[in-house]
Amino acid sequence: MTKGTLAVLINSTQQNWLPERWKARFDAVCGGRRVVLLPDAGLDPAEVHYAAVWKPVPGDLGSFPNLRAIFNLGAGVDALMADKSLPNVPLVRVAVPDLTNRMTEYVVLHVLMHHRQELYLRDSQRAKRWEPTYQWPASAVTVGMMGLGTLGADAADVLRRLGFSVAGWSRSPRTIEGVECFHGTAGMDAFLRKTDILVSLLPLTPDTNGILNRDVFTKLNRNSPLGAPVLINAGRGGLQNEADILACLDDGTLGAASLDVFVQEPQPKDSRFWTHPKVVLTPHNAADTDADAISAYVAEQIATFEAGGALENVVDRGRGY
Amino acid sequence: MTKGTLAVLINSTQQNWLPERWKARFDAVCGGRRVVLLPDAGLDPAEVHYAAVWKPVPGDLGSFPNLRAIFNLGAGVDALMADKSLPNVPLVRVAVPDLTNRMTEYVVLHVLMHHRQELYLRDSQRAKRWEPTYQWPASAVTVGMMGLGTLGADAADVLRRLGFSVAGWSRSPRTIEGVECFHGTAGMDAFLRKTDILVSLLPLTPDTNGILNRDVFTKLNRNSPLGAPVLINAGRGGLQNEADILACLDDGTLGAASLDVFVQEPQPKDSRFWTHPKVVLTPHNAADTDADAISAYVAEQIATFEAGGALENVVDRGRGY
Repeated sequence: MTKGTLAVLINSTQQNWLPERWKARFDAVCGGRRVVLLPDAGLDPAEVHYAAVWKPVPGDLGSFPNLRAIFNLGAGVDALMADKSLPNVPLVRVAVPDLTNRMTEYVVLHVLMHHRQELYLRDSQRAKRWEPTYQWPASAVTVGMMGLGTLGADAADVLRRLGFSVAGWSRSPRTIEGVECFHGTAGMDAFLRKTDILVSLLPLTPDTNGILNRDVFTKLNRNSPLGAPVLINAGRGGLQNEADILACLDDGTLGAASLDVFVQEPQPKDSRFWTHPKVVLTPHNAADTDADAISAYVAEQIATFEAGGALENVVDRGRGY
Repeated sequence: MTKGTLAVLINSTQQNWLPERWKARFDAVCGGRRVVLLPDAGLDPAEVHYAAVWKPVPGDLGSFPNLRAIFNLGAGVDALMADKSLPNVPLVRVAVPDLTNRMTEYVVLHVLMHHRQELYLRDSQRAKRWEPTYQWPASAVTVGMMGLGTLGADAADVLRRLGFSVAGWSRSPRTIEGVECFHGTAGMDAFLRKTDILVSLLPLTPDTNGILNRDVFTKLNRNSPLGAPVLINAGRGGLQNEADILACLDDGTLGAASLDVFVQEPQPKDSRFWTHPKVVLTPHNAADTDADAISAYVAEQIATFEAGGALENVVDRGRGY
């Protein structure tokens, strides 16, 4: 029996998404299965059993009558969930340790940068000022983690090891050792009041769209040892109200922000985020996707599925992630 | 019986060394023992049994005939060891978890800054360039830790948790789980060849004076995924040959350096370290001394000693730390 074809469909123009490289990786790990890079005019849609995708155009996946599963090659499925014609087959979010490790590097780096006054120290270096100021220990600072899935839990673990107090907030209840966990709308205010450094790793859903706004920022710890609370968003640009962030940085509601994601990417040249002295901007590179690790993960999942096993990390379409 | 006096002697002019604050802390924790801040013209030298010091002038401690122990209030004893008239009583280096935690924050922050291309990304932000480049995972990078005492071992532990390969070098053999340990002159070259990010937490002794020099830098991993190897020195300024560091940054032998310590502190305005684009300069604030934690530690040590117990962290005068 011929194995069903794996169709690879990548629409991102970001430089680290090289469709040909992904096809080559899938060819190497899919054990003889036919791998087709879309678009391919000669492809019989009926032969496609699996699709490995990143940001397909809405409607693209509806043309395969025998599709069995869709693998989303990045962590966020918000672009896919916006496609109302998405076939009703299991949609798998890739979750590889490599992605988790990279995101934890990013979160730990940016928490430490703000905790250790890097913006002030770089200004001091430029001005040739040898003026250390009082440095709180990590134990005096609470990092509030929004999103307690695989990524949030791993970053929280390292931050605890470094001595930070860690609080967490998620949609539904979670229990993580050493992390004071809050959940739902009812738990939000108490979570924010404790938080000196707010880290967002939330998925983008209709519920979380624009959740990082002035209302939330004003509820953060007003007596923060950092002076004013700090925002770190490595989730999705759609989570943030960008006008609110800039206004809150200007009026001191926020002391600083590290932003890896934006409503518009790349950011346009006239964006104030490039030049604001309290903003640390990174070009959506917090957690690069490693084609080697992810292609191997997809191949394993397909093999398990065809042997009658269950797919991992299937998206709950009701909640949207 | 009257308890022997504790003499407090602090000569540093660094702003975080406030002698009156230290005296107040010792008064609070020494349970009725007399605490005298030096110089004090009315003091009978014979009543002083203990001295808590930071950078005393050579000869200062020789005037107390009944001295039983000296407590050095920071981690480095190099200034004391240079005093040939230092009384031959136990010299204790303070070692409090607070100091270790702060140093680990510093090392992890600066390793991650270089690993995650922060110098490039800040340049990009200033130039409004949205140009992420390839990012290696931590597992592709080896951090080489020079100095495997309490500080080096703790930083190595967090770096391993983040996924870095960690190698270590020390004067005498050490075994640390998950760290490839080298020692002595014979082990140095093999250690350096593996190392992409060299972290120095060595004590300053006649053997280590100027150890961070061109000869060492040229032996670091010439095929580093970082492009060129990186130096992080949070030990002592005297460890580094500063002309070699600048020349090696200029000719590409080193890719970047984070320096917290210098031969001359504060750095003079005409130092190239302020302005070199590959240098991250911090004003000797990697691990601030916390008077609360350290005064309590000294009081505990004195109580243990007077009850017949052993002092902890007594300096080996032969090796100099």
